[in-house]
Amino acid sequence: MLKDGERLDRLEREGLGIIQSPQVFSFSMDAVLLADFAAIAHTRPAKIVDLCAGNGAVSLMLSAKTKNPILGIEIQEELVDMAKRSIELNQLQEQVHILQGDVRQLSSLIEKDSVDFITCNPPYFKALESNQVHKKLAHTLARHEIFLPLEELLSAISQVLKMRGKAYLVHRPDRLSDIIDLARMYRLEPKRIRFVHPRAHKEANIVLIELMKDGSPGGAKILPPLIVFESEQVYTQEVREIYYGTKS
Amino acid sequence: MLKDGERLDRLEREGLGIIQSPQVFSFSMDAVLLADFAAIAHTRPAKIVDLCAGNGAVSLMLSAKTKNPILGIEIQEELVDMAKRSIELNQLQEQVHILQGDVRQLSSLIEKDSVDFITCNPPYFKALESNQVHKKLAHTLARHEIFLPLEELLSAISQVLKMRGKAYLVHRPDRLSDIIDLARMYRLEPKRIRFVHPRAHKEANIVLIELMKDGSPGGAKILPPLIVFESEQVYTQEVREIYYGTKS
Repeated sequence: MLKDGERLDRLEREGLGIIQSPQVFSFSMDAVLLADFAAIAHTRPAKIVDLCAGNGAVSLMLSAKTKNPILGIEIQEELVDMAKRSIELNQLQEQVHILQGDVRQLSSLIEKDSVDFITCNPPYFKALESNQVHKKLAHTLARHEIFLPLEELLSAISQVLKMRGKAYLVHRPDRLSDIIDLARMYRLEPKRIRFVHPRAHKEANIVLIELMKDGSPGGAKILPPLIVFESEQVYTQEVREIYYGTKS
Repeated sequence: MLKDGERLDRLEREGLGIIQSPQVFSFSMDAVLLADFAAIAHTRPAKIVDLCAGNGAVSLMLSAKTKNPILGIEIQEELVDMAKRSIELNQLQEQVHILQGDVRQLSSLIEKDSVDFITCNPPYFKALESNQVHKKLAHTLARHEIFLPLEELLSAISQVLKMRGKAYLVHRPDRLSDIIDLARMYRLEPKRIRFVHPRAHKEANIVLIELMKDGSPGGAKILPPLIVFESEQVYTQEVREIYYGTKS
């Protein structure tokens, strides 16, 4: 099942295999934290969509949190192919589907006002920073806002979400103000925010945000901080549980 | 120096006395954290204004952080009187001044585009919640947005701040989105944000925000979380230092 340069890694908590390619794309801690953060319906029927799905890491992890089907959308053919093989490998073809498509044309792929839950680990860096862009195209697309500005992403999310449907984003804290401003412009109200700090005494380097379509203004909860390392190279108990699911 | 119902308390870190009245107004942890958070110039000449100054707690604490004069503005006569007596008590008449005035008319009290640093511990609760308003008027004014909506406060701050001048606010996390939206509407860009959590595993109940007038958009830093209690009724080391200044 593996192609050149690929390897088989594991999602420990879910007991799933995942095909990755260090040269092309590997999922990061962002994906793991996003899948953990997303409060999707476990049994209640719900439409769940994972945008910017990459090699399918978030979609695969979500499959362990719900009995509902999950639709992943990814623009890059190479990653769609990788994700499809991971789905087969885990025999999840019934539950997880990956579609090649452009988030900017999302409403041509998915019915408007129809989705209950969206997850998205979008490309981060501003298009302006393209002088620092990686040489590998897959990496570039996955990490930069060149092809998907934040505003287009939030607009697309708002179009397909149901009223009171929820979107879960992972992003960089230095974009917090832009995310809040733009989200509200597109009827998405921040409801839960969690900051992730590499160490307890360090600034946050990741933010997780829950947005509710047409939620009442204000009232966002700032969840307890998530601290990644308790000491040099030693994960905190909470991060160990998120990665390895010690309670499972 | 004390009037009926008043008592003399101490600002331990600064070694200052402060007149309070449990019935009328006592400063809270918010004031202590705000004074600690505000990064005002120590020796470089700067114009420093403390809005919604209450009984002068923040102004007094700031006096220990700078050689510059500090001007406190407070609308309630009773609190202005209390603050003035505290200033005399500490022989700080040369450095700290309290003026009775309405923040909504701030630009009639202070020259536009002239202030380097502003601190503000504003009334918190939305006017809409007036059914829950306290019976004591002083408390009511100090705690509710009835007489000073957030938007008017940010507009006033923006008018008197210099370009690249900084305002420090303490507020409630459930207003975070409104603060960010409204601040940006009035050319105030969030640059540093710190969340305060009563315990490490609890949601934030206080937020400290640094706004820069005409700051470049985005790039806000989320500082390490400030945890208040390490166990039941035991302050964390950091909060002990903020309150008592163990390093002094």
